[in-house]
Amino acid sequence: MAQKKIGEQTVKFDNPPSIIGTATIVGPKEGEGPLKDYFDLVLQDDLWGEESWEKCETKLQQEAIKMALKNAQLIESKVEYLFAGDLLNQITASSYSARQFDIPFFGLYGACSTMSESLSLGAMILDGGYAENVVCATSSHFSTAERQYRFPLEHGNQRPLTSQWTVTGAGASVLSSYGMGPYITHVTTGKVIDPGIKDANNMGPAMAPAAADVIVAHFNDTGFTPEDYDLIITGDLASIGKSIAEELIAKEGYDISNIFSDCGIEIFDPKKQDTHAGGSGCGCSAVVFNGYIFKNLKKQSLKRVLLVSTGALLSPTSVQQGESIPGIAHAVSISTIKE
Amino acid sequence: MAQKKIGEQTVKFDNPPSIIGTATIVGPKEGEGPLKDYFDLVLQDDLWGEESWEKCETKLQQEAIKMALKNAQLIESKVEYLFAGDLLNQITASSYSARQFDIPFFGLYGACSTMSESLSLGAMILDGGYAENVVCATSSHFSTAERQYRFPLEHGNQRPLTSQWTVTGAGASVLSSYGMGPYITHVTTGKVIDPGIKDANNMGPAMAPAAADVIVAHFNDTGFTPEDYDLIITGDLASIGKSIAEELIAKEGYDISNIFSDCGIEIFDPKKQDTHAGGSGCGCSAVVFNGYIFKNLKKQSLKRVLLVSTGALLSPTSVQQGESIPGIAHAVSISTIKE
Repeated sequence: MAQKKIGEQTVKFDNPPSIIGTATIVGPKEGEGPLKDYFDLVLQDDLWGEESWEKCETKLQQEAIKMALKNAQLIESKVEYLFAGDLLNQITASSYSARQFDIPFFGLYGACSTMSESLSLGAMILDGGYAENVVCATSSHFSTAERQYRFPLEHGNQRPLTSQWTVTGAGASVLSSYGMGPYITHVTTGKVIDPGIKDANNMGPAMAPAAADVIVAHFNDTGFTPEDYDLIITGDLASIGKSIAEELIAKEGYDISNIFSDCGIEIFDPKKQDTHAGGSGCGCSAVVFNGYIFKNLKKQSLKRVLLVSTGALLSPTSVQQGESIPGIAHAVSISTIKE
Repeated sequence: MAQKKIGEQTVKFDNPPSIIGTATIVGPKEGEGPLKDYFDLVLQDDLWGEESWEKCETKLQQEAIKMALKNAQLIESKVEYLFAGDLLNQITASSYSARQFDIPFFGLYGACSTMSESLSLGAMILDGGYAENVVCATSSHFSTAERQYRFPLEHGNQRPLTSQWTVTGAGASVLSSYGMGPYITHVTTGKVIDPGIKDANNMGPAMAPAAADVIVAHFNDTGFTPEDYDLIITGDLASIGKSIAEELIAKEGYDISNIFSDCGIEIFDPKKQDTHAGGSGCGCSAVVFNGYIFKNLKKQSLKRVLLVSTGALLSPTSVQQGESIPGIAHAVSISTIKE
């Protein structure tokens, strides 16, 4: 049997899957941010004609999947697996979205790391020869997340400056064994790492060690250096977590400062948009990746990108029970060439 | 590239992964049921020295993984991926369990279908050449599930006769590219199917169509008939759901009545144990599979089994918002020979 594992945590694909189409749908606030021109659809309000924010989130994900298929010029019956997850209890945005499709479904939970978790598994299933086309999708919604994780919106609580703003948005990628790229060439799968932080309003530092660990593992396993990348972008470390991750990675001998960014930093203008440390949520790296990054890869203004979606694996119950917040991150290497 | 897909939804493995070790830990009630002699450890109480039921569930999963590795005579550093999920909000039993291990982690959510979801993905990752050893695990706990999905236990609510009893237990399987079997030979991945049922105390019928659909797809894709199996066992359809599934499958031309059972029916004695329609929870098919079924496969008293863990994809919020309950099921074919 072919051994495709390189190093401890990385897979290098023999037949790198191609991303043949993506789609992004975002809420009004995201549509006013710095990346507004890269999204396929910006909603006028956060209900989109639905009776609840949760139903709106399901619709976001479902419509993003349909739009990604359309953008990929692929019909639903050609898709062999759907990989999706979200932040809602029991990932109902994904399950209720998947109900609309006649596609075998694997439900995932990786908190805000779900975009790179789904791309990792989807790419392995394609390269392994189990499918020719898969869809990877995720979503989040500011109002469903706030009332589930924190307080009712009506409560009008003050948000600490370390807090992040959950992105309202959904992104979907169609991966294929065929296609002209960009290609997923490597995936490095992360471990759960807990730095002992207990403040649920300060999740960047809880996730930073996991992000640093997987990025360092990626370099060690592949032999790549920061110079091989045009962009290394974490999911939602935001401003506080990003600087911690950068420092932890530097301690391991890799200076990524010139090419390092974070989806949570890129999506909002914190000064104009009152988003404090930055954006967060599964939808954050999903819309930045499937919008901004994918479009720049297509026009070759980015040539090789490492997407590192990051997740904080807390629940309101675990926090109430005095638990600290473990983090996870998965790295996906995407290139315009099939090396 | 090898095309390993057969039919619409099934993968047939070139190098069927071997299940080289399993472990099961159950609560006191499960330890008094008909399958009590097949479990590795029966707890004396439902806290196991922890401060909360949720922390007990984390410990259940974590100790089941350690015990499965011991039973497989494998050290942790040889395991390349851990696939796990559970019913708790944000799958904290799995994430906090995974925190204890230095193993790359993929979090899953498939409700009570998680055991066969994890075995499906784990087997594909092994057969695809991405790993030599993976662990698949899941858990549930009666008391964490009751208070999360239904009422505080102190409320002492009356349970309708259609309701099921969430199993307190965890099961883990170690899969390997090497080993003497039993082997996972095929996986058939299910779709989300919603029969429109809105009663969260009657989940068997909500899952039965998904179970029937994936079993029929398995027969159609593989050419197997009911005669090829010693046992076809669903996850937790329990008494009401099982009879519906059997009828739906018969309508498609397959009479499985002689070899059809359900983990939720096998695990408790409903008359003596007051469990109404039967057992449920991720832990239900996990402990029946990793205990009773695995041990019977090892001693060849079962030769070919189709495990079909079943999940009801509701959340308390989706039910409160008037949504119906979609179901999902994944089928995993396990044989004593590597055919």
